[in-house]
Amino acid sequence: MARSRFSRRTFTSGAALAALTPTGLATAHAADARTAAAQPAAAAAGETRLVTMYIEALPDGQMGYGLKPGEATIPGPLLEMYEGDTLHIEVVNTLDVAASLHVHGVDYEIDSDGTHMTDSVVEPGQKRLYTWKSHEPGKRADGTYVHGSAGYWHYHDHVVGTHHGTGGIRNGLYGGLIVRRKGDPVPDKQFTCVFNDMTINNRTGKPGDDTPNFKVKQGERCEFLVITHGEFYHTFHVHGHRWADNRTGMLAGPDDPSIIVDNKICGPGDSFGFQVIAGEHVGPGEWMYHCHVQSHADMGMAGLFVVTDESGNVPGGGGH
Amino acid sequence: MARSRFSRRTFTSGAALAALTPTGLATAHAADARTAAAQPAAAAAGETRLVTMYIEALPDGQMGYGLKPGEATIPGPLLEMYEGDTLHIEVVNTLDVAASLHVHGVDYEIDSDGTHMTDSVVEPGQKRLYTWKSHEPGKRADGTYVHGSAGYWHYHDHVVGTHHGTGGIRNGLYGGLIVRRKGDPVPDKQFTCVFNDMTINNRTGKPGDDTPNFKVKQGERCEFLVITHGEFYHTFHVHGHRWADNRTGMLAGPDDPSIIVDNKICGPGDSFGFQVIAGEHVGPGEWMYHCHVQSHADMGMAGLFVVTDESGNVPGGGGH
Amino acid sequence: MARSRFSRRTFTSGAALAALTPTGLATAHAADARTAAAQPAAAAAGETRLVTMYIEALPDGQMGYGLKPGEATIPGPLLEMYEGDTLHIEVVNTLDVAASLHVHGVDYEIDSDGTHMTDSVVEPGQKRLYTWKSHEPGKRADGTYVHGSAGYWHYHDHVVGTHHGTGGIRNGLYGGLIVRRKGDPVPDKQFTCVFNDMTINNRTGKPGDDTPNFKVKQGERCEFLVITHGEFYHTFHVHGHRWADNRTGMLAGPDDPSIIVDNKICGPGDSFGFQVIAGEHVGPGEWMYHCHVQSHADMGMAGLFVVTDESGNVPGGGGH
Repeated sequence: MARSRFSRRTFTSGAALAALTPTGLATAHAADARTAAAQPAAAAAGETRLVTMYIEALPDGQMGYGLKPGEATIPGPLLEMYEGDTLHIEVVNTLDVAASLHVHGVDYEIDSDGTHMTDSVVEPGQKRLYTWKSHEPGKRADGTYVHGSAGYWHYHDHVVGTHHGTGGIRNGLYGGLIVRRKGDPVPDKQFTCVFNDMTINNRTGKPGDDTPNFKVKQGERCEFLVITHGEFYHTFHVHGHRWADNRTGMLAGPDDPSIIVDNKICGPGDSFGFQVIAGEHVGPGEWMYHCHVQSHADMGMAGLFVVTDESGNVPGGGGH
Repeated sequence: MARSRFSRRTFTSGAALAALTPTGLATAHAADARTAAAQPAAAAAGETRLVTMYIEALPDGQMGYGLKPGEATIPGPLLEMYEGDTLHIEVVNTLDVAASLHVHGVDYEIDSDGTHMTDSVVEPGQKRLYTWKSHEPGKRADGTYVHGSAGYWHYHDHVVGTHHGTGGIRNGLYGGLIVRRKGDPVPDKQFTCVFNDMTINNRTGKPGDDTPNFKVKQGERCEFLVITHGEFYHTFHVHGHRWADNRTGMLAGPDDPSIIVDNKICGPGDSFGFQVIAGEHVGPGEWMYHCHVQSHADMGMAGLFVVTDESGNVPGGGGH
Repeated sequence: MARSRFSRRTFTSGAALAALTPTGLATAHAADARTAAAQPAAAAAGETRLVTMYIEALPDGQMGYGLKPGEATIPGPLLEMYEGDTLHIEVVNTLDVAASLHVHGVDYEIDSDGTHMTDSVVEPGQKRLYTWKSHEPGKRADGTYVHGSAGYWHYHDHVVGTHHGTGGIRNGLYGGLIVRRKGDPVPDKQFTCVFNDMTINNRTGKPGDDTPNFKVKQGERCEFLVITHGEFYHTFHVHGHRWADNRTGMLAGPDDPSIIVDNKICGPGDSFGFQVIAGEHVGPGEWMYHCHVQSHADMGMAGLFVVTDESGNVPGGGGH
């Protein structure tokens, strides 16, 4: 592959597009997804929604996606769909360089690819509509099975710095996308962990740049979305909790042969997710999560999954 | 392990071996496997076939396997079997150093191992017969289940340069092997992508050394075989298409819990495969495939999965 | 995460703890697990056992876990449980630095975490009780499925050198843990392979420091437990034998969609296991196992899975 075409293409959302309620979004830190999912907009299948996503400069050369002006975060907002939903994302690029929105896992036509080659980027000061669709499982005419879109996916820039978005991703232009199947358990809490080079969510773990800690109560259903970006492979490990290496991260039943893991190798572009019941079988505590590559952990790729008891306390003096 | 035995052992294919039609082979680039599979030789189970494989020097110090003299390619020819088939491969080594044929996934006795230690290499100017067998699933006497040989496998040299074939593999001595189960869907098009160090199929992506592009029509059933070799881990990603991380790359049905992915970490010696319907849910376009490790993609580990419409056109001016 | 709390906490096993028979242990090299499992202590579910584990200094700055004084090995003893069992491990630290026991896969309360942060380390010259529990599969009140503890797990230090045990692990403080489900096939032979940086079980493969070879008879059911530690990713490959990438390493039956592999990428903290019938479909021989990363294999990360015939012979002059 050697070609690259550069052109400008902008979009103004037409009147035909109903501006629906913003998607049932959860921020990257401990949002209550159950509440969001209880809204009709999120629970019904086949919804079409429109959101606006702002690409903004952040301090120290970092960049982020946000749903409102001035509210960009790293990672960007966690987006959610049910299989069958359509999501229109109007991306407003406030940077002084071209940027884009490229997504994994869901359906989109080539003009929503978010790459220079397909002429689907957002020039500085412009906006562009990206459309993501999703579908339920089904059968083809030849009898073969079509998987549904459900999964733990993610989105990121594919333009800033290089034609693969190396600069955009390094600086924070990434976020999570969860597509749920009707009937999938809905979590109480959600966490997005992005192993981006030697950081977690672009936090180095050095003094003053703490990696994220996730605080929950014992018994809460917690959903982790783990994304990897950058140069390095990592191994995501969490203490005292484990998951199934399958679509949902939970065994479907006694006949599900999936391997149970508490440590998983991952590389750039990978994503996976799972739900655990906080403290199940193990009780409250400050449970580390970290990259298990020794030097990565030692350099700061570690955080806490803090599980409190009903009173908000943690054994050993934690809970702070 | 410290031993190494060197000896010479040659083979002349005996008269007892019927020279059957060449295996239902597809070259690495867009061959029509459906046609091949429609031949009785490929469709019937339990066939025994004999092919001759030439190990040849190519320009720039590269090396390849080929089914006829002067036709060696990188990767070597894509070999295919049905579970139950036996494949005899007479390897003719035209190099001036010893070389071999080592295979993953299928059954062979130790004298077909292709290693110095087991005295199963091909000396310069000699030939040697390697025999690969495969088997259908079944049950052992104790009631445990025996998996069949079906899978996305591969073969490579295990001798040139080092006792692990590091020089042979680096220079191109590798190829794909697909073992199909009776009833598995047969693809229209097949592609072998070998991430070998920082190349795809030993192509660097630099000007004049283009990585492979795969051109198909929307709706065609396309089979990817992805193999990794060399030093580095990679993550294989394709835009707009995804697959199941199971034996076939396709969900067996609604109860198959396998994770759906569009990005997969892989390391040397790994192989996996899958089938997708070109453009399903997403339409025609120039869909990138690339290693998602940022520097690898930026250095050229990327190519195109070009899906045309019925007229051979691609949106955005592609299709060339 | 930035905190670290240091305190001393010792334990004396109380009288309430019945000192049961030592766990059905197999050493890392070719122990007969079938015999062990046939003992009532191992076969019955819900057993509670107490073992003592000694952390000891070994020559050349290495360290090991052992079940008796002066018997520390690298890897440490292979521990086994059935789902439902509880294992109390009294760890005696004979080193002159703090050390610990951190486990993957099974249930433990936070004071058995084995980390400085949770105040669960063993100071020099002290001892401490760690308690591991395991559970069978089941259902939650909300109808979702709870996976059981069965799996190919492992334990390691989390303290020596750094807060992630980088020094302890590098020097040999690691071992395997297998949790079996009632009804799982019991192997004849067991092997633990730990890819720890560029070594296998801390053996470099250089002259005088041979990597482990595993010798068995054709037809024996052999169980491999593969663990990765340190800095590097690896790919575990074995010649002539393959396994299912699921919980047991064996297909559950014809509907199990798991991928069959003979090569698997793994990173630090990962573990997986499988059983193969030695020589099934391929006969006796000296079957290499090795890391398939070319330079790793070339530097010595390789060993032999020696499968003899009934008379103890190996084709090609092996069996020694």
